Amino acid sequence: MKNIVIFVVSDTLSEIGELLVKAGKSCFESSIREVRFHPFINDKKSIDYLLELAKKENGLVVYTFNSPELKSYMETEARCWSIPIYDVLGSLVETLRGITGEEPTHNFKPTPELDDHYFKKVEAIEFAVKYDDGKNTSHLDEADIILIGVSRTSKTPISIYLANNNFKVANIPLMPEVEPPKELFEISNKKIFGLILDPKHLVDIRTERLKAMGLTGTSNYGSNERVMMELEKAQQLFDKLGCMVIDVTSKAIEEIAAIILANIMRR
Amino acid sequence: MKNIVIFVVSDTLSEIGELLVKAGKSCFESSIREVRFHPFINDKKSIDYLLELAKKENGLVVYTFNSPELKSYMETEARCWSIPIYDVLGSLVETLRGITGEEPTHNFKPTPELDDHYFKKVEAIEFAVKYDDGKNTSHLDEADIILIGVSRTSKTPISIYLANNNFKVANIPLMPEVEPPKELFEISNKKIFGLILDPKHLVDIRTERLKAMGLTGTSNYGSNERVMMELEKAQQLFDKLGCMVIDVTSKAIEEIAAIILANIMRR
Repeated sequence: MKNIVIFVVSDTLSEIGELLVKAGKSCFESSIREVRFHPFINDKKSIDYLLELAKKENGLVVYTFNSPELKSYMETEARCWSIPIYDVLGSLVETLRGITGEEPTHNFKPTPELDDHYFKKVEAIEFAVKYDDGKNTSHLDEADIILIGVSRTSKTPISIYLANNNFKVANIPLMPEVEPPKELFEISNKKIFGLILDPKHLVDIRTERLKAMGLTGTSNYGSNERVMMELEKAQQLFDKLGCMVIDVTSKAIEEIAAIILANIMRR
Repeated sequence: MKNIVIFVVSDTLSEIGELLVKAGKSCFESSIREVRFHPFINDKKSIDYLLELAKKENGLVVYTFNSPELKSYMETEARCWSIPIYDVLGSLVETLRGITGEEPTHNFKPTPELDDHYFKKVEAIEFAVKYDDGKNTSHLDEADIILIGVSRTSKTPISIYLANNNFKVANIPLMPEVEPPKELFEISNKKIFGLILDPKHLVDIRTERLKAMGLTGTSNYGSNERVMMELEKAQQLFDKLGCMVIDVTSKAIEEIAAIILANIMRR
């Protein structure tokens, strides 16, 4: 079967399914045409509708259901229609059943335990929001990671992504007209990461942003000269701090975060 | 095998493994003692060390590796030591191999494509940070979801979680002394969610927070009377707006977000 459409279906969010399918898709790029996400599918009629689509479009249905009733309905109907399906939790549950010799107590609990790990994550997220965009520089030393860079180098989404992985992150914007906070020079440069971007790319991104804000032609924010000057000043600061510098051009947030974390963990 | 310890191992972050194991664990609570996370395992020595631990502690190793070399080393060694292992992507890749009749091109790509879906998520995260804690109320109508509630009702982490799932979220703190922004009355109340918390629980959380800030006894922020008064005033506003109200007591962020999204999607 070629030209496959993967339907990621769940009666809540389908986070695990989403991550799993994206990773799986990358191994079969030439055969998979598209991935579609269908969270909050809460009744049999919606399942019927999705299966009908899947039948028409060379569909593979990748699913997680909290409701045992909907899960078994999906499985029975898909078998009837000969539609291939994949249960996201199925093979892990089978493995655990084999190892423990136990029957699973219920299908699956999508909500985490309110344990230390959970509260640390919440704390990290609150920290990242509080320390976004240089809003806060007091107690900067409490941060595990500090990101610095000129406007539009993805500081905010990288901070939030790292916070979701339990790291406390602060980010500070660099502008030639503003002195960087003195606290930066008082903490270990091993925590600091300078972000740069290809100048041409940065000009494009800023021009798009100005357009979106209805501000074309009224600002030098998106000009070549301005961007080059900002990046040079930023590089001077990175040199002075002796921090690691990451070129974020054409990299996904996840990729940049992985570089940062690999670096932090190695120490 | 009882009293199992699950080792979640990866040469990058182990996000998929983490989510999958947490869900799987909830089906076998009585047999699984602990879950430990080991991201950024980048050499054979570290794998040896982990396998030694796993052998001692009734371990199941749940793994994803980008590096084919480390992946195959892990599998060979674990077999040697008779340690049970589970490849997070293995069974989906097998399913896709069966359907497509193709060999997977490589092991797996952990980074997402820089497509529309990706940029929408980044935009949603930037929006949530910009519209956190009432910092911004202009263009509030651009939000998909607006959370309102008194201090310490988890507005920020819920907003970020929803943003990670591509929803634009604003959150606005309620204080009896401050008039709620008039923009709240100009947008559909179907987008607005009022958050409440059991008063006793809220008193405890605030008392802890004051302690953490070294401010015990200096504020009425954590007093019974203050908390009751704030919650009453908040309820009055919720009634006036006619918005949905969610009691967040003892609920995980994921659970609260699922309630909100189920409600939004149903419309």
